[in-house]
Amino acid sequence: MFANLIEDVRVARPLIHHITNNVTINDCANVTLSIGAAPVMAEALEEVEEMVSRADALVVNIGTLSRSQVESMLKAGRAANSCEIPVILDPVGAGATNMRTESARLLMDRIEISVLKGNAGEIGMLAGARGSVRGVDSYGLDADRLAVGQEYAEQTGVIVVISGAEDVVTDGSRTVVVDNGHAMMGKLSGTGCMAASLTGAFAAVCPDRVTSSVAALAAFGIAGEQAAQRASGPYSFRTALIDEIAELQPYDLMQKARVRSV
Amino acid sequence: MFANLIEDVRVARPLIHHITNNVTINDCANVTLSIGAAPVMAEALEEVEEMVSRADALVVNIGTLSRSQVESMLKAGRAANSCEIPVILDPVGAGATNMRTESARLLMDRIEISVLKGNAGEIGMLAGARGSVRGVDSYGLDADRLAVGQEYAEQTGVIVVISGAEDVVTDGSRTVVVDNGHAMMGKLSGTGCMAASLTGAFAAVCPDRVTSSVAALAAFGIAGEQAAQRASGPYSFRTALIDEIAELQPYDLMQKARVRSV
Amino acid sequence: MFANLIEDVRVARPLIHHITNNVTINDCANVTLSIGAAPVMAEALEEVEEMVSRADALVVNIGTLSRSQVESMLKAGRAANSCEIPVILDPVGAGATNMRTESARLLMDRIEISVLKGNAGEIGMLAGARGSVRGVDSYGLDADRLAVGQEYAEQTGVIVVISGAEDVVTDGSRTVVVDNGHAMMGKLSGTGCMAASLTGAFAAVCPDRVTSSVAALAAFGIAGEQAAQRASGPYSFRTALIDEIAELQPYDLMQKARVRSV
Repeated sequence: MFANLIEDVRVARPLIHHITNNVTINDCANVTLSIGAAPVMAEALEEVEEMVSRADALVVNIGTLSRSQVESMLKAGRAANSCEIPVILDPVGAGATNMRTESARLLMDRIEISVLKGNAGEIGMLAGARGSVRGVDSYGLDADRLAVGQEYAEQTGVIVVISGAEDVVTDGSRTVVVDNGHAMMGKLSGTGCMAASLTGAFAAVCPDRVTSSVAALAAFGIAGEQAAQRASGPYSFRTALIDEIAELQPYDLMQKARVRSV
Repeated sequence: MFANLIEDVRVARPLIHHITNNVTINDCANVTLSIGAAPVMAEALEEVEEMVSRADALVVNIGTLSRSQVESMLKAGRAANSCEIPVILDPVGAGATNMRTESARLLMDRIEISVLKGNAGEIGMLAGARGSVRGVDSYGLDADRLAVGQEYAEQTGVIVVISGAEDVVTDGSRTVVVDNGHAMMGKLSGTGCMAASLTGAFAAVCPDRVTSSVAALAAFGIAGEQAAQRASGPYSFRTALIDEIAELQPYDLMQKARVRSV
Repeated sequence: MFANLIEDVRVARPLIHHITNNVTINDCANVTLSIGAAPVMAEALEEVEEMVSRADALVVNIGTLSRSQVESMLKAGRAANSCEIPVILDPVGAGATNMRTESARLLMDRIEISVLKGNAGEIGMLAGARGSVRGVDSYGLDADRLAVGQEYAEQTGVIVVISGAEDVVTDGSRTVVVDNGHAMMGKLSGTGCMAASLTGAFAAVCPDRVTSSVAALAAFGIAGEQAAQRASGPYSFRTALIDEIAELQPYDLMQKARVRSV
């Protein structure tokens, strides 16, 4: 039962190795701790393999990438593949610059990614669909994002998560829509990155990464809905969001997840 | 009317490209989102020109500079000049080390800066006045800061903003003092950086950068005054500050701005 | 009287130079400001010596180290030694990777460290004891951590602080246990880093670094206890923690410190 994954994370306390942007890195560490996993951030080329060998999942996010950071991501990703731990890729801003698009493609090519999580513009760009990308929080894919995600998942063998008002999780054949969340999440920088951290934490304790991704997104969305009720703006929302994540129980997921197969 | 600039930012949703320090980068992203603009942080030499080409303003802050970051700032700044988008420079710690002073001077020399925003010590150092700089939040310029700012603005053609209990905005001939804000803002790291982000957001939607800077500083100060009323320390103040910025209305600026020409 | 060190920090407003990780750097800046000291973060090789020459303490933390950052730490550390300001070392993750262990050892060898602050696993690893280290927040040293700390302090001439539910401060002959703090501190990323910042602020105003470290840890722990009473999760705890630190009075330390010599 997917709701129990919350409990599984808290019991296993998986170590989630992040190589991520320096804007939301603190929130990623704290969201990971709050769900009950252990975060570690390490990106020196000299240590990423060794750190990966201790980790239970790797989360890679190109939000403030550099050439040397991408090199570390490749090295860490290959190590993760050989250790057989899941790799989550958040291709932040793919489509906004060539460097981001090419780095995301390089990571997709060279590493076996378990879950690719982006917004419609980013996924569309990687899938080759005509997207309109602006900055790092774009929407506005012309093609039907469900179809794009499914086709790209099938093509690549990667679980594709397209975040949005409704999140889509698909492996090509199985497609699930998660309809949790709150508009406040779009007013706070880093909610996408935090969702990727949770996706990593749940993936670490569940070999079925469609299910684990759905659980992660539903859990995050439910926490967001609850946090919004006592927030009066973006930072009181952030405070409430992390507090709610720390309090989430399997019961919340069972009762409040709005998940449907399509 | 300068109060309407708040509305203009929310409607235009300008993309504000930051190359900034890694201490307050998250608050800069969130303050930008909260006022209704879109933040993007990107500093890889390979992508800054392309990102600038999508942006509506560039904010450059040397708070944790490195040689390669300054190189990216120069490249981004030149691109911003050729795209004719405003560049805001926050010379954090100019005067504290030679590297900071020289980097700030280099940026002033090589890039057409729209708005230079610093404290009295930083501006005085760049202007060649005898300042006493200590760390990054220094005050204590010997010379009259009004005169120093005016003269430097006239000399350089840059709008100079000198932050302090009262903020000064001057282009050399026109000088405006903004008397909003609260002492709590000095107890929180990053308020100067956040003010620069807002200055960038307002500059993106208004070609008169004296007016846009005055509006940005007044808006930030008013939010600070309101936040202080329900804060019990630096972090509850921070939470309230971002929440207040998200709630600011043109009406607040009209009613509460304490702005005078001098 | 050690309680008055709080007042001494506020009066002297020492400048605390940090070279630290990019995860918790913002919280380190803000905790430093909140206790009444002035933070500065600077790690460019070109400026660290000059910045150290203005500083009153140096805090070095290897939480997200890189080769070039370690080089800057060495240069800054040597400058700090020749300026005779205290150096605090937080060997985050020593034992988790060879790079971290070796970098921490290098810093111990080449710089005269005033206070080494780590968890039992990190200190045990540096001391050569058999530890079990996992990620950056590990416990689980086999050997008695009191004895390990005392022996290592005696051997190296460094004040050793072993953080945990009870913190140990020892110079080898004098050993003090600080029994303040709250379990919530383990649910928030960066509390160890913040403790190191406070240890630096107190060390800057007190030549007896056993006493200053005890005062710093007790102050932090008391603030944590008070914050926990009005927190409903990790981020409301963080907000309350920084707010409480800003409000700490010598009276609080006198009344609430649970400190015993062993």
